[in-house]
Amino acid sequence: MGELRALPLRGMGEIRRGDSLVEAILAALRRRKLRLRPGDILVVTHKVVSKAEGRVVPLKTVSPSARAVRWARGSGHDPRVAELALRESRRVVRRGHGVLITETRHGFTCANSGVDLSNVDGGRSAALLPRNSDRSAARLHRALKRRLGISIPVLITDTFGRAWRLGLTEATIGLAGMKPFRDYRGRRDPYGYRLHASLEAVADELAALAGLACGKLDRAPVCLIRGFRYQPGRGRARDLLRPREHDLFR
Amino acid sequence: MGELRALPLRGMGEIRRGDSLVEAILAALRRRKLRLRPGDILVVTHKVVSKAEGRVVPLKTVSPSARAVRWARGSGHDPRVAELALRESRRVVRRGHGVLITETRHGFTCANSGVDLSNVDGGRSAALLPRNSDRSAARLHRALKRRLGISIPVLITDTFGRAWRLGLTEATIGLAGMKPFRDYRGRRDPYGYRLHASLEAVADELAALAGLACGKLDRAPVCLIRGFRYQPGRGRARDLLRPREHDLFR
Repeated sequence: MGELRALPLRGMGEIRRGDSLVEAILAALRRRKLRLRPGDILVVTHKVVSKAEGRVVPLKTVSPSARAVRWARGSGHDPRVAELALRESRRVVRRGHGVLITETRHGFTCANSGVDLSNVDGGRSAALLPRNSDRSAARLHRALKRRLGISIPVLITDTFGRAWRLGLTEATIGLAGMKPFRDYRGRRDPYGYRLHASLEAVADELAALAGLACGKLDRAPVCLIRGFRYQPGRGRARDLLRPREHDLFR
Repeated sequence: MGELRALPLRGMGEIRRGDSLVEAILAALRRRKLRLRPGDILVVTHKVVSKAEGRVVPLKTVSPSARAVRWARGSGHDPRVAELALRESRRVVRRGHGVLITETRHGFTCANSGVDLSNVDGGRSAALLPRNSDRSAARLHRALKRRLGISIPVLITDTFGRAWRLGLTEATIGLAGMKPFRDYRGRRDPYGYRLHASLEAVADELAALAGLACGKLDRAPVCLIRGFRYQPGRGRARDLLRPREHDLFR
């Protein structure tokens, strides 16, 4: 096993609706004198994807419903953000302690359906998650392949809270070009014991690595990860969702 | 922001009760011609810590209670493992779909109280979590300081499942020499928006990185992480536990 490396990419400039994210990424790589090569992985925070896809909503255009106003009043939140969070949700999972936890239309369980004001425009507009984040990842993956002739897995991430544990970590909400898991089930450890439950969510671990390397205040929305032996193949972030009937914490 | 690197350390040999983990780690570093330097972080899987501390139980010495037998019968588990899991727990959080989710005596919520047969001795014995994993991390941290004269943060990890999401990721169960969080609250993003909820659980992201780099089948129980600007100070893995009264998923 070799060394694993993560390189944050800065200097992509402001991404606007309709911009080509792939061209912005390739330009940022050139400026760092980096060239993508087989084995590399790109992890992209969803914020720039949402911006490129026009998933940014000026708050002044949002009329909150009575339901959103009620929730916001009790929790100290902006009712317009609550309104967007409810619109983007499939159901409310929990509500309390000033937090609105929803299941998004994609199936992700997170605070406020991922609706967020940070790193957008100073608080005037909210970014929504990409409408279909797996499709967004697949689009980036294909565009890179067209431009470079090699297959580079692409992960799109957001910052999620967790049950039981404090603090946020990066999680994968869109994926293309690799399997999201490293599957040890059925394999034997060095002592001959056959593993039976070990399905490692490497996609989320790669997201976490990008979170560490890039931070939130340094305008580094993309991370190049080098040295991880991923399993190529068709995969989606949706595969990371625990099937409803097996989820003990709905 | 520079580059973040993770280097798996192999060749530490089999760790036995009473062995000095620090000496084993330093020997493994010497063999790789690596020298710890300020800024480095060590991430250690709990299995070797448990072995060094004698937290390994031969299954033939375990008499399962009626409760453990009942649960194991319904789920296809070994009743002796279930017995150890119940003994190591403070309470059962959920039970179903062949999974026993407990809160450990430390307060961690995970399957089987972290009791696990992999990478021990081929299935004859179970490893328990260290009794006080923060204290174990502090002991390693202090021993490294005595030997090298520098402060190297130490994280101890285990592999945990998550609510809502499939697959396992590494999580931190013991920590010393750094803060487990990167706290963005009150800081402004590059657009002038003041962040208010962003408390990043970097300890768990570092654990995830070590999980990616080291794998489970390569006898690499320690990961050296280089290039992450951690916040020095007193910190414990226990700080990562969501206070009971704020946990919506108990």
